[in-house]
Amino acid sequence: MVSPSTDSIGSVGSVETRFLDLPGPLRLDCGDELPAVRVAYETYGTLSPERDNVILVCHALSGDAHAAGHSITPPDAGTRDGFAAERRDGAAGKALGWWDGMIGPGKAFDTDRFHVVSTNLLGGCKGTTGPSSINPNTGRPYGADFPVVTVADMVRCERAFLDALGIDRLAAVAGGSLGGMQALQWAVQYPDQVDAIVVIASTHALHPQGVAWNAIAREAIMRDPAWQGGDYYGTGHAPEAGMGVARMVGHITYLSASALTERFGRRLQSADDIRYTLEQPEFEIESYLDHQAASFVRRFDANTYLRLSRALTYFDLARAYGKGSLADALAGISARTLLIAFSSDWLYPPAASEEVRAALTAAGKPVEYHLIDAPYGHDCFLLEEARQIPIVRSFLEEERPA
Amino acid sequence: MVSPSTDSIGSVGSVETRFLDLPGPLRLDCGDELPAVRVAYETYGTLSPERDNVILVCHALSGDAHAAGHSITPPDAGTRDGFAAERRDGAAGKALGWWDGMIGPGKAFDTDRFHVVSTNLLGGCKGTTGPSSINPNTGRPYGADFPVVTVADMVRCERAFLDALGIDRLAAVAGGSLGGMQALQWAVQYPDQVDAIVVIASTHALHPQGVAWNAIAREAIMRDPAWQGGDYYGTGHAPEAGMGVARMVGHITYLSASALTERFGRRLQSADDIRYTLEQPEFEIESYLDHQAASFVRRFDANTYLRLSRALTYFDLARAYGKGSLADALAGISARTLLIAFSSDWLYPPAASEEVRAALTAAGKPVEYHLIDAPYGHDCFLLEEARQIPIVRSFLEEERPA
Repeated sequence: MVSPSTDSIGSVGSVETRFLDLPGPLRLDCGDELPAVRVAYETYGTLSPERDNVILVCHALSGDAHAAGHSITPPDAGTRDGFAAERRDGAAGKALGWWDGMIGPGKAFDTDRFHVVSTNLLGGCKGTTGPSSINPNTGRPYGADFPVVTVADMVRCERAFLDALGIDRLAAVAGGSLGGMQALQWAVQYPDQVDAIVVIASTHALHPQGVAWNAIAREAIMRDPAWQGGDYYGTGHAPEAGMGVARMVGHITYLSASALTERFGRRLQSADDIRYTLEQPEFEIESYLDHQAASFVRRFDANTYLRLSRALTYFDLARAYGKGSLADALAGISARTLLIAFSSDWLYPPAASEEVRAALTAAGKPVEYHLIDAPYGHDCFLLEEARQIPIVRSFLEEERPA
Repeated sequence: MVSPSTDSIGSVGSVETRFLDLPGPLRLDCGDELPAVRVAYETYGTLSPERDNVILVCHALSGDAHAAGHSITPPDAGTRDGFAAERRDGAAGKALGWWDGMIGPGKAFDTDRFHVVSTNLLGGCKGTTGPSSINPNTGRPYGADFPVVTVADMVRCERAFLDALGIDRLAAVAGGSLGGMQALQWAVQYPDQVDAIVVIASTHALHPQGVAWNAIAREAIMRDPAWQGGDYYGTGHAPEAGMGVARMVGHITYLSASALTERFGRRLQSADDIRYTLEQPEFEIESYLDHQAASFVRRFDANTYLRLSRALTYFDLARAYGKGSLADALAGISARTLLIAFSSDWLYPPAASEEVRAALTAAGKPVEYHLIDAPYGHDCFLLEEARQIPIVRSFLEEERPA
């Protein structure tokens, strides 16, 4: 394992989100095509003359293109999940990227060696074409007309975007959660174009309880009358009530029960005693949930949430590529695979990563798996940076040195 | 352990829910008092001449007074939770009680020996005075004016109800989940009036994650515009959308992840493949959640749900009676205690029962604890009857034989 010396670790500094319009339409799994797609992106580090040092990092459900450094783009409330949300730099205009601890000089994705590219996902609400974008066919936001996209569609969009940048091959694709699904999808969909994948706190197919949590979160949004079937833009009403509930559900699934106990216990808001109230938060954890819901609603679009949530429940490599066999689905990949899971993650539990490892091993593919014993649940992929850095650095040593 | 012979096990037969009006007002923890309280109840077995063979069984959040036998009361959609909901007798007018497997001749609560009494909780919506009852001061349903009640208030109501029946002492108080909280509360609140308590899948204080799930469920209801601050009766609108989401959240917390995997896996509704839909259920588990939500909304009142959910999060014996020490809180009880927990119950995890056991042991109180290894989660208390019966029967052997 390679431990970076402390003084070599730094920030990528100030960054700006840029935008690229794909040159042609994008075909989707559902059969539709999007006539015009804009992609929001950031890059960190220097592209080699051979264009062979590119790492694509893929964000999770509520992320955006701003993965590292301080944004000089107008600030929003930040894009980190759960406890990780509190780690962002609160100063106006200086919001830290959602994976700043992992991307930079001397960090896991070392910008002294690699050119790191981060895009906002297809269907997103942070600059890449999504439900809140203008539909060129109508001149109004897509709303309900925006198609149901898949992880494969997101990766197809990323492929088209990199084509437009003139980047053929990727040294690595990396991500956690839904981002890890994209990394796996890349390895399966474009086996000759990616050398390595880093799949953190992710899975080849979300387990049924995870499918249920996502369904409940979507129901909370779609049952809110303000959702209006998805056509709420410009009406003066958005499904903020339902989005708040969806966020609360998500939030609790991102954290472990023991982390909640350690952090909040059963402490009351009032120093004295209970106040016999339904509508006011009474326990600290209730107040925390209210706060998280309110801040998420301000920064995220409900129709994007619905589509990304649906995409991550649909994702199922064995079904899509192996007629039910994960080993068959992975038989064609050529990328080296790094899997990292966290002991307390019950939304993307270690068992899922172990299934991927077993399937890759059965298919004779190189795979490295690390189970990190850590208490915070799924959010560990954003919080446990110090322990992931040496693992990822060591794994990426084999890629082309800068 | 006593194993009942099969041929001695039977049903309590057809039963009818009856009603009793308390003779006076009921004082509540919040400082209010309810001027008139009606209690819905059922009884099974014969009251001894000495009135010393009474077992009070207490229901959980969504239960009612119909605990055993076939109801001759007009049927509703049943009162069992989770997978247990499917175990009820579907024939019109013959709905099985929610604990029918445990109550009857030769069963855990043996009606050949005991007179079993079951009431609908204070604040309920199944015949006992609750938010949907008429407020005698206004002539209209209480709605928002119904107070926030506590587990202690529920027990105070049960005490007043038994007084009215002329029953001074209880051979036992028994219940699962919120019902188990009532049993613990009885032992603390009326230490000289209860000989034994049977506390199943319950706790002395819900853990923070459980507090969070309950808060989310209540938020889903209260954020539904149809809730109208609680005054929705007679308006033609009820918070059915929010109640459905609340029920879905509850439902998933009642079951284990592995039970969901075993039962539903990732099977699709459509035999062919995904249909790229947001609004239609796509996975079997999504369809199941929809169905559970729809059937719950038809049979349960949202304002009752809010109050019972709040009561079970407030419940905290150490805070209320021990200045933070559970052992101090339990120091005054004289009842023998039976605790049963289930290995896969993550809403009321075994650790909570073990804390009660430790505190009772520290206080020198008799306590018996059984951890049952079973896969269904919190719902085990309604499903794993065969394994609970010998434990409960053996524990109750020491009580007065009929």
